[in-house]
Amino acid sequence: MPSSTNETHNPNLKSWVKSANDPNTDFPIQNLPVGLFTRKYVEELPRIGVAIGDQILDMSAVTDTIWETVFEDMIVDACSVESLDFLMMLEPEEQSEFRRRVNRLLRADNFGDERYFAEGCLVSMDEVEMHVPVEIGDYTDFYASISHATNIGKMFRPDQPLMPNYKWVPIGYHGRASSIVISGSPIRRPSGQTKADNTETPTFGPSENLDYELEVGFFIGYGNDQGESLKIADAEEHIFGLCLANDWSARDIQRWEYQPLGPFLSKSFATTISPWIVMREALAPFRVPAYKRPQGDPQPLPYLDSLKNRERGGFDIKLEVHLSTEQMREKGIAPHRLSSSNARDLYWTFAQMLTHHTSNGCNMRPGDLIASGTVSGTTKDSFGCLLELTSRGTEPIRLPGGEERRFLEDGDEVIFRGYCERDGFRRIGFGECRGIVMPAN
Amino acid sequence: MPSSTNETHNPNLKSWVKSANDPNTDFPIQNLPVGLFTRKYVEELPRIGVAIGDQILDMSAVTDTIWETVFEDMIVDACSVESLDFLMMLEPEEQSEFRRRVNRLLRADNFGDERYFAEGCLVSMDEVEMHVPVEIGDYTDFYASISHATNIGKMFRPDQPLMPNYKWVPIGYHGRASSIVISGSPIRRPSGQTKADNTETPTFGPSENLDYELEVGFFIGYGNDQGESLKIADAEEHIFGLCLANDWSARDIQRWEYQPLGPFLSKSFATTISPWIVMREALAPFRVPAYKRPQGDPQPLPYLDSLKNRERGGFDIKLEVHLSTEQMREKGIAPHRLSSSNARDLYWTFAQMLTHHTSNGCNMRPGDLIASGTVSGTTKDSFGCLLELTSRGTEPIRLPGGEERRFLEDGDEVIFRGYCERDGFRRIGFGECRGIVMPAN
Repeated sequence: MPSSTNETHNPNLKSWVKSANDPNTDFPIQNLPVGLFTRKYVEELPRIGVAIGDQILDMSAVTDTIWETVFEDMIVDACSVESLDFLMMLEPEEQSEFRRRVNRLLRADNFGDERYFAEGCLVSMDEVEMHVPVEIGDYTDFYASISHATNIGKMFRPDQPLMPNYKWVPIGYHGRASSIVISGSPIRRPSGQTKADNTETPTFGPSENLDYELEVGFFIGYGNDQGESLKIADAEEHIFGLCLANDWSARDIQRWEYQPLGPFLSKSFATTISPWIVMREALAPFRVPAYKRPQGDPQPLPYLDSLKNRERGGFDIKLEVHLSTEQMREKGIAPHRLSSSNARDLYWTFAQMLTHHTSNGCNMRPGDLIASGTVSGTTKDSFGCLLELTSRGTEPIRLPGGEERRFLEDGDEVIFRGYCERDGFRRIGFGECRGIVMPAN
Repeated sequence: MPSSTNETHNPNLKSWVKSANDPNTDFPIQNLPVGLFTRKYVEELPRIGVAIGDQILDMSAVTDTIWETVFEDMIVDACSVESLDFLMMLEPEEQSEFRRRVNRLLRADNFGDERYFAEGCLVSMDEVEMHVPVEIGDYTDFYASISHATNIGKMFRPDQPLMPNYKWVPIGYHGRASSIVISGSPIRRPSGQTKADNTETPTFGPSENLDYELEVGFFIGYGNDQGESLKIADAEEHIFGLCLANDWSARDIQRWEYQPLGPFLSKSFATTISPWIVMREALAPFRVPAYKRPQGDPQPLPYLDSLKNRERGGFDIKLEVHLSTEQMREKGIAPHRLSSSNARDLYWTFAQMLTHHTSNGCNMRPGDLIASGTVSGTTKDSFGCLLELTSRGTEPIRLPGGEERRFLEDGDEVIFRGYCERDGFRRIGFGECRGIVMPAN
């Protein structure tokens, strides 16, 4: 077992919540991701929950009935509020302690009274609505997959697919926080200005090149003061946990608007995130070396380099994109897998992105969201967006049922899944990040 | 008088607050801008204030002592909280009513009891600290000065200074909300990656090309739902008020990082705003036609065009940049004016920027900040940043006292001023937007 793992990662642990022991569940007792929910048909403030099998452990109920006796307890306080802010702001050791306590509560070998109380704190996932888990102050999106950057670059700049800065600078841009929505929220097709190559003037109308982008996001735990920078060696302690993210993109709008200041309205209409934040510690067994730079690539500058980052900066997370069209749903055809890739193939690690982001003194606040950019591999079955998969719409994809797709059509549902597997460890997953395309207004 | 003005704009009105009648004050009774303050040496939550001469009318004191009797009054409620959120969310007619009430309270011809109560609600500007007036959810920066875009473009792309999209698309990008600070906050010189033209590899260190950008910002009042777009005819109603903004920029970092996704760390270390928000209604006498596009320029697409916008979409705001170096302060030399420009010269109006921003369904929230981008005129004495003023550092500026500047040095203080003047109306001002450069860490 890697030294960074502990008893909460023990693959032999079972939970008394039966569904958590299903080998296919994303949420065994080794995972324990956190999210924010309200019960359907109940008028209530959002509550913090922990996913366990197909159930949610209602942490405000736990703090009311089981943990209430603890005096001046940061963890209890953090679980009693209507947002994940305070949980995110806990020190890493306190976050570990949070996981240990929830683990103890849910273990099959717990025969204490608290187990029976905890049974009363379960809510079925069917019975809730999930919410964006925290007030996201700022959202930043990187561009950390070199395969994606190269593929896209080839389309827009055949003579220079990869900019000279790419292997030195973790390229990123500021995104829009207001339009981040939770998995399941419908996505309205955006309108905007586009210009065809063979015309002189642009027109305004619904985007015809709507795309998804398969990404992994991470939430900032405790932040840094403005004017101070994080060191690469410490940066990870500021990563609270990870989720899946779909950075919906209107390629035709993007193409016309993006110079010289970058993507703007082609992205800001919506970003979907998965509802369960997998805490950093849960991912300890799935840490891998940072991307191995091929011979000839420069090494990162010292501020972006550390032994720990080189040896364990990566995350081995398998990612999948599935598509379900309206016609497929009508015909009872299951969602079709379009591609799969892996977060370990990112050219820059999350620690490098975060360190770079604060290297100018930019302050991070708890709940800030940073995403990886589209995660693409080197082969066509690993491309993380339709722009790449269909070579800019020139090679349509065939779907079961006979339909074709160049870009997304109204009624299409995009479903991301993510999970971690490794011999000797229990598989854990991220759940789903879904969104269905609605017609333009 | 333009039809959109009312009794609060009457140039003959005086206030019983003597300093408000000084012809040089930025804050006569015709202005009444709002801000957030705390008294120095007092432990208290921030309070909403209205600037009047060299005094601040403490609105929470006013609501406690004068307006308290009013029952279920939105305006009283909005003034009683610790942020401008609720004031911003008021309907335009309620915002007018707010101005009318404050105006009545402060008029020289008010001899009622409330005047004497109001005297007890004044705090001297010397005795307060100002704060960022609202939780800024998202910050967007446009690029709306065609002179600035052309000047910058010439340096980076001599063959194509202005991109083909410029005259069609109000170009903008998402900025960083976390690092927005109030006037007077020290600005730490950022470090970052830069690469000289004659070297192969970048280096990391303090920026040597630190610059300011002279901008006007506007705060969103009530917002729009995600998936809905504002119409150009209605967009202005969502503009609560205006301020000055300094979008500090590290040009050497910018140059190396900005392709292909736009400026990122070169901007996100700090943005300074002036503390007093001049409400839209206060600016009614100073509305002017939108920028007159020269023969040959395309007309805006229909979604960005309206008669009202053409006739009165502009704001006639004179803007000035002053610089004070450490040496100048030691020698007792007054700040030196580097340039002056005018917001009426922006190629795109604020209504067009806002309409464009929501045209893809992007939701605005109360308190979101949108800035114009650097406001430059066509002549050298009107350039809004040092990059333009010194032609990328090649033509240093001479300062009184004998110093030269290519870019900002440690200890330099940048001071923006803004004001509106027009025959038949009282001059109103924005106060100052200041920031002093501190050495890099």
